[in-house]
Amino acid sequence: MKMSQLMVSTLRETPAEAEVVSHKLMLRAGMIRKVAAGVYSYLPLGYRTIKKIENIIRQEMDSKGGQELLLPAIQPAELWKESGRWQVYGDEMMRLQDRHKREFCLGPTHEEVITDLVKRDIKSYKQLPVLLYQIQTKYRDEIRPRFGLMRGREFIMKDLYSFDRNQDGLDESYEKMYDAYCRVFERCGLEYRAVEADSGAIGGNASHEFMVIAESGEAAVVYCSECNYAANQERAEYFWEQRGKEEDSKPLEKILTPNVKTIVQLEEFLNIPAEKFIKTLFYQVYYADKEELVAVLVRGDRDANEIKVKNILNCLDLELAPEEKVAELCLPLGFVGPLDLYGKIQILADQEVMEMVNAVAGSNEKDYHLLNVNPARDFQVSKVADLRLVIQGDMCPKCKSSLKVTRGIEVGHIFKLGTKYSEALEANFLDENGKAKPFIMGCYGIGVGRTAAAAIEQNYDENGIVWPMPIAPYHVIVIPVNAKDEQQKKIAENIYESLLAVNVEVVLDDRNERPGVKFKDADLIGFPLKIVVGPKTIEENLVELKIRRTGEEERLEVKAVTAHVQAKIEKEIK
Amino acid sequence: MKMSQLMVSTLRETPAEAEVVSHKLMLRAGMIRKVAAGVYSYLPLGYRTIKKIENIIRQEMDSKGGQELLLPAIQPAELWKESGRWQVYGDEMMRLQDRHKREFCLGPTHEEVITDLVKRDIKSYKQLPVLLYQIQTKYRDEIRPRFGLMRGREFIMKDLYSFDRNQDGLDESYEKMYDAYCRVFERCGLEYRAVEADSGAIGGNASHEFMVIAESGEAAVVYCSECNYAANQERAEYFWEQRGKEEDSKPLEKILTPNVKTIVQLEEFLNIPAEKFIKTLFYQVYYADKEELVAVLVRGDRDANEIKVKNILNCLDLELAPEEKVAELCLPLGFVGPLDLYGKIQILADQEVMEMVNAVAGSNEKDYHLLNVNPARDFQVSKVADLRLVIQGDMCPKCKSSLKVTRGIEVGHIFKLGTKYSEALEANFLDENGKAKPFIMGCYGIGVGRTAAAAIEQNYDENGIVWPMPIAPYHVIVIPVNAKDEQQKKIAENIYESLLAVNVEVVLDDRNERPGVKFKDADLIGFPLKIVVGPKTIEENLVELKIRRTGEEERLEVKAVTAHVQAKIEKEIK
Repeated sequence: MKMSQLMVSTLRETPAEAEVVSHKLMLRAGMIRKVAAGVYSYLPLGYRTIKKIENIIRQEMDSKGGQELLLPAIQPAELWKESGRWQVYGDEMMRLQDRHKREFCLGPTHEEVITDLVKRDIKSYKQLPVLLYQIQTKYRDEIRPRFGLMRGREFIMKDLYSFDRNQDGLDESYEKMYDAYCRVFERCGLEYRAVEADSGAIGGNASHEFMVIAESGEAAVVYCSECNYAANQERAEYFWEQRGKEEDSKPLEKILTPNVKTIVQLEEFLNIPAEKFIKTLFYQVYYADKEELVAVLVRGDRDANEIKVKNILNCLDLELAPEEKVAELCLPLGFVGPLDLYGKIQILADQEVMEMVNAVAGSNEKDYHLLNVNPARDFQVSKVADLRLVIQGDMCPKCKSSLKVTRGIEVGHIFKLGTKYSEALEANFLDENGKAKPFIMGCYGIGVGRTAAAAIEQNYDENGIVWPMPIAPYHVIVIPVNAKDEQQKKIAENIYESLLAVNVEVVLDDRNERPGVKFKDADLIGFPLKIVVGPKTIEENLVELKIRRTGEEERLEVKAVTAHVQAKIEKEIK
Repeated sequence: MKMSQLMVSTLRETPAEAEVVSHKLMLRAGMIRKVAAGVYSYLPLGYRTIKKIENIIRQEMDSKGGQELLLPAIQPAELWKESGRWQVYGDEMMRLQDRHKREFCLGPTHEEVITDLVKRDIKSYKQLPVLLYQIQTKYRDEIRPRFGLMRGREFIMKDLYSFDRNQDGLDESYEKMYDAYCRVFERCGLEYRAVEADSGAIGGNASHEFMVIAESGEAAVVYCSECNYAANQERAEYFWEQRGKEEDSKPLEKILTPNVKTIVQLEEFLNIPAEKFIKTLFYQVYYADKEELVAVLVRGDRDANEIKVKNILNCLDLELAPEEKVAELCLPLGFVGPLDLYGKIQILADQEVMEMVNAVAGSNEKDYHLLNVNPARDFQVSKVADLRLVIQGDMCPKCKSSLKVTRGIEVGHIFKLGTKYSEALEANFLDENGKAKPFIMGCYGIGVGRTAAAAIEQNYDENGIVWPMPIAPYHVIVIPVNAKDEQQKKIAENIYESLLAVNVEVVLDDRNERPGVKFKDADLIGFPLKIVVGPKTIEENLVELKIRRTGEEERLEVKAVTAHVQAKIEKEIK
């Protein structure tokens, strides 16, 4: 493709709408354009990257026996009412009526449609397992769409659904997908981690997220520095070793702490480190049939892990209790402690709290705290468990090595669904004994646009995008420094033609622009390789090859360029 | 792929919902499934054909310099209000509101979005021409969706838009697309015709439809038996030679024809052939600022071509006048004729009418007709023109050879838009003199699912689909006649493996089914080639190769199969 004909216009300034790097750079490099909030057009450069990611995904799904199909975006309300999700989804689901006033939604996901399809087309265990996938456009009416392709309202996803006859089959399908996902992100040239994710009520090791590692990532990822343990922070566990009492317990003491309410204020006021405090948090907890207030105790220097709390309570949802709920207990906010709560409400204590000695806690009396609080001696709790967020330096639950925390962007999620949808939609097959059984399902998603955006968040510098070779829109740009110099122009064109002839994806910057403009555009768009045909070297029949990622430069004889470039590309594309 | 693992279930019975062959066969062969009226899931077999058609289109668009992008399905109302089409589209446009009550539609087409994009990203004539295309899902809320993929509410289209600096540029882009479209349908292995289509007010040779020839086609196609002239029937012209008077005119005569109102009744009653009658039709004609009643005269054996009438009147729309409109003229329906109408309303006469001698016409008096009516002598008209539908046997307007009429299915449409959208959306570029000018646009569509359906309408027999090789879901099926015979099974598997090894798209029917079931399924799905490993031949180390289209059978040595099959496939895929 010649740059003069390529539908691309780069922007020097960053549009005000963009907050994150990938969004800024995709706009500036002319890869996407906004049509409405969370709704984008993919320009030719951007769409090339999207298609490359799609093709890698397609190959890996096919290699595991996946069969590609295409389900509609428009889905009848009836199916969603059967599964019970028509109500659950709320405002996030885009809904519409057709001319006959029949209700539809624009699919945010396709469990209902695929389950209904398989229910009608697959009758026997002999036809199982099947792995069905599509690469398709999904809709979610995000309350605040932002970050470009990272959180859009219309977005491209690969979703695969597995149907098995039993749990072993599901485990096998899940394993296949786990492997395929690793291959996908590896082949995209990304640094990623597969982390255990919380799977709520289903429990077990039934869900993994695939995270592209990036400082700007929205989620914390915990991983072991030595073994392969990795989990997202809300799911992560650690190896806990009881320390044993380090001092003798002292008598309880009440002290005046006027207006000293937060841990930070207390640390300063008392000159005692936060790890000596007991933090008492109140949660409003929701069940299907009731709600209640629950106290959660963690050490002053720890954060409660709400997912762990939620799983222990086996509740539908929870949130930090609003002030008025706590006020109902007639307790003074900022001075609340675990004493005397027992019997009034449920109290959950993090395991670390129970081994504290002579701790500081609220007194439940305004302007007073207690010193030398000793759990068990001074207060009782309903349950003790691991309730806190893991932090850097905690011990790996598998190998006791030191855990590290980094940030990542979720680009894939695999999930064992079980019979949730097959039971709701009465999707059964006949087993070996002719007995009807619900399909055992799994679902497996990759955000395609999100993967492109995450790739940029992981691979950029101050000049623009630094594409990994496998998903770069083009591999090479050829730049004649002076477009009016006939010799440079001719040599550049020859190199371009000979690269094209061996199917290298190459752009010739044939524009009549200053060299600075051409170099800036090349860096911004992020061509992995740049071939510069300039006055300095051309007399010796040499051109420069610059590597975008490393900044390395080498001089090559014109006739050696094609083979050299081909080899470089092949090395980086698996 | 092994048949036991392929997600396909064939149906012996035709589902009641299907009326046309392609719909029936796509359902029966397990290619599509209905999700809602006009909304389908494409199963793996069906989607393979769709993807093959898409890839042929993609290659041909790219070869003409087309650049692929992807525009959103969700489009903001504002853009459509700017172009004036938000109102025009009516109920056919699917509309929705997001959570903030902002109005959107699901794009039935993308002129607005692409024009807005190009307006913002292309500034100079130096960047022109550009040809931008997408293969994307479109939405039209058809009042009566039917015929499967032929007329859906959610469907896949390729739409390309050309942007040029002047009319010559547009002509060139149009020519490129015309050629590309011919290549596409040729490469799909379809018999098609590019026909001139009516382009309404724009006029000129500015629109072509691409029709797949099929008896079940919804449109009549006129083409020359000798030269390359072809047009859809509403557009078609013919060479008209005045016959000259064949007899002397006789005096006007009024005869009693009680209750004889239609041409057929008159033919019988008077024993005079229909070609001697003058048919007087009344149309209610709509303009932007008024409406009027117009009379159109054609010979009794001809049909008026409403498009020709519309173009001559240069009106917005017309329809056969409702009875009450005609009644306002105090004329007796069934006995109306051209006499005495002149001055009351506009009268258009087909050119053939004016050379009629001693014709029969209505008398404008109940129960009476007139004999020996002679145009000019007996009545005057406002305008004479070619106003009738061309029929088989008319003379070609280019070469005077005999015209033929066949039926076809419209699968593509190319159109010179000019500045309609660029002016409405103020989409300008700067020309060589720095002057702002609107882009000159063209648009070019192919219905992808429709092409698949049309391919079936053209290629089927009583046993099922007869896929053209280039768009068959798979090329070959290997069938061991007796799945329990180890020798047959082994040989079938070996053939399957060796075909796979050379990238032949092959299915092995490894199911434990009766031979009849396997053969029926193979024919229904339409594999172009069938390799039968059966008891009759296997002792001699031979297998049978059957050609689906011709029914030919040949016996091949097992070791010769792969090369033979490969050669057969290559021959048919261009």
